[in-house]
Amino acid sequence: MSLIATTPTPPYYAVIFSSVRTELEQGYIEMANQMMALAAEQPGFLGVESARNELGITVSYWQDLQSIKLWKANICHLEAQKRGRLQWYSAYKTRIAKVERDYEMDKI
Amino acid sequence: MSLIATTPTPPYYAVIFSSVRTELEQGYIEMANQMMALAAEQPGFLGVESARNELGITVSYWQDLQSIKLWKANICHLEAQKRGRLQWYSAYKTRIAKVERDYEMDKI
Repeated sequence: MSLIATTPTPPYYAVIFSSVRTELEQGYIEMANQMMALAAEQPGFLGVESARNELGITVSYWQDLQSIKLWKANICHLEAQKRGRLQWYSAYKTRIAKVERDYEMDKI
Repeated sequence: MSLIATTPTPPYYAVIFSSVRTELEQGYIEMANQMMALAAEQPGFLGVESARNELGITVSYWQDLQSIKLWKANICHLEAQKRGRLQWYSAYKTRIAKVERDYEMDKI
């Protein structure tokens, strides 16, 4: 799998999730991996990219707003979101954005 | 400075820059820091977030498309883009997206 998500011609949607972790490691990696796998099974999922140093940025790509809404309300994801707020994140911000244009290295 | 960018109420724009580095280190950090500082001086710049493991993700936030266009065409930035393609990146993708909604941890 390429690290850079292969996404269709715009428009499509991006969920930009920027977060700062607490020091609590317990259960985090397992849940993060589970959520990545579960997201990939959802209708409208297009791909995901993730990186972390002090700040973590995960960008997931979706076909439309409805797909994002359904994923946000997924029962397993709701539980993960709750544990995230309580245990794993000291701060985060989620941004929902409509991708209007994109460029790849080879095409410039 | 907080790691998570403080941005105004949407709508505003995000430039999602996802990249994979080559092994060439020479000049990279200096240029990356210069570009961060220069971007912050541009009209319409709202903030930036960055993280890197194998994949790097830098998301810069902008007031409108015109601000992004001007930044893309900035003469120093053009030179950095050129060196990036030739030396520092083995692959990248840039996505221009309109942020329609956002949530913070405390507000959920």
